[in-house]
Amino acid sequence: MKKTISLSTPLYPAPCIVIGVYDPEGVPGGMFVAWGGVCCSEPPCISVGIRKSRYSFEGITAHGAFTVNIPSEEHAAQADYFGIYSGRDENKFIATGLTPRRGEAVNAPMIEEFPLSMECRVVHSHDLGSHVLFVGEVVRTWALEESLNDSGYPDPLKVRPLVFAPQYGAYYGLGDVVGHAFKDGRSLREREV
Amino acid sequence: MKKTISLSTPLYPAPCIVIGVYDPEGVPGGMFVAWGGVCCSEPPCISVGIRKSRYSFEGITAHGAFTVNIPSEEHAAQADYFGIYSGRDENKFIATGLTPRRGEAVNAPMIEEFPLSMECRVVHSHDLGSHVLFVGEVVRTWALEESLNDSGYPDPLKVRPLVFAPQYGAYYGLGDVVGHAFKDGRSLREREV
Repeated sequence: MKKTISLSTPLYPAPCIVIGVYDPEGVPGGMFVAWGGVCCSEPPCISVGIRKSRYSFEGITAHGAFTVNIPSEEHAAQADYFGIYSGRDENKFIATGLTPRRGEAVNAPMIEEFPLSMECRVVHSHDLGSHVLFVGEVVRTWALEESLNDSGYPDPLKVRPLVFAPQYGAYYGLGDVVGHAFKDGRSLREREV
Repeated sequence: MKKTISLSTPLYPAPCIVIGVYDPEGVPGGMFVAWGGVCCSEPPCISVGIRKSRYSFEGITAHGAFTVNIPSEEHAAQADYFGIYSGRDENKFIATGLTPRRGEAVNAPMIEEFPLSMECRVVHSHDLGSHVLFVGEVVRTWALEESLNDSGYPDPLKVRPLVFAPQYGAYYGLGDVVGHAFKDGRSLREREV
């Protein structure tokens, strides 16, 4: 039986993203973001929802740019750190021991140790209430060589991304393969024949 | 060593969402969406990127509404079906054997068998190129009772959502717990003391 519940957005899974921004003075920082995802293919775009009180909000608006960095399981504590503390008080890269690497295409820092980084140029923003939606066009994508397969593509099992279920407070790893896209659905139709 | 790669948006994990819409004639349909996520907390909002050629695009624009439905692992083939075929040619609910349930708050159908459904009213849209970004305010959320914990909240381990890595074509399950949000980061700071 399906019934209404008070929790509004149990959209599982949420990603674990750490965005990278320079603050208005050029100090590297960023924050943990679960409210985000890809939103367009051509041009490739990613959207993130940022609370207006966040220090990263100032950095994004000052530079019109951010990076999207995907932590691996081994970076869970460092990614989590970026969600707890404020760049107003400290340099989070120094605090976590992570290395900021200046983007080549936009004015925002990447996290060198994370397996995947995407440089994004803000192409749209919209105030939704508590959060402003920023859409960034991905202008360059970076990967650690050890996270690529033989074809030069990121291998999810080498990236080992964190999978989030926000109000549960747990980060999960990738589980077993339970289906195949653009394939399992065809079997339903073939069954009908 | 980090290097540039040609793949633009390896944002892992992507969600596996099936949106529900009525077409302009009121026939229930929808599509599989990986380009989406939560984007605001107050009011609660979800964004989805929809290719303009998709039949669901017509339904969303006709009614200003859609539902976000989260399939469980057991629904992988049915969710996948919604990503392969077009509602121009058939009623996907009949084809998959799923039950459309009319939303109570918006003019869009939910998928009764999926553990979680969110009724969304379109509050913003923006043409990004291949895709239009639609932001829906979540006005009502539904859950199957068997997916809730004792507190009445959805339990990720009962929902068993599908976790997607788009260009790999694989649906994964949730893996082991590998970290704790708003906790692991604190241990880094305590370590410093």
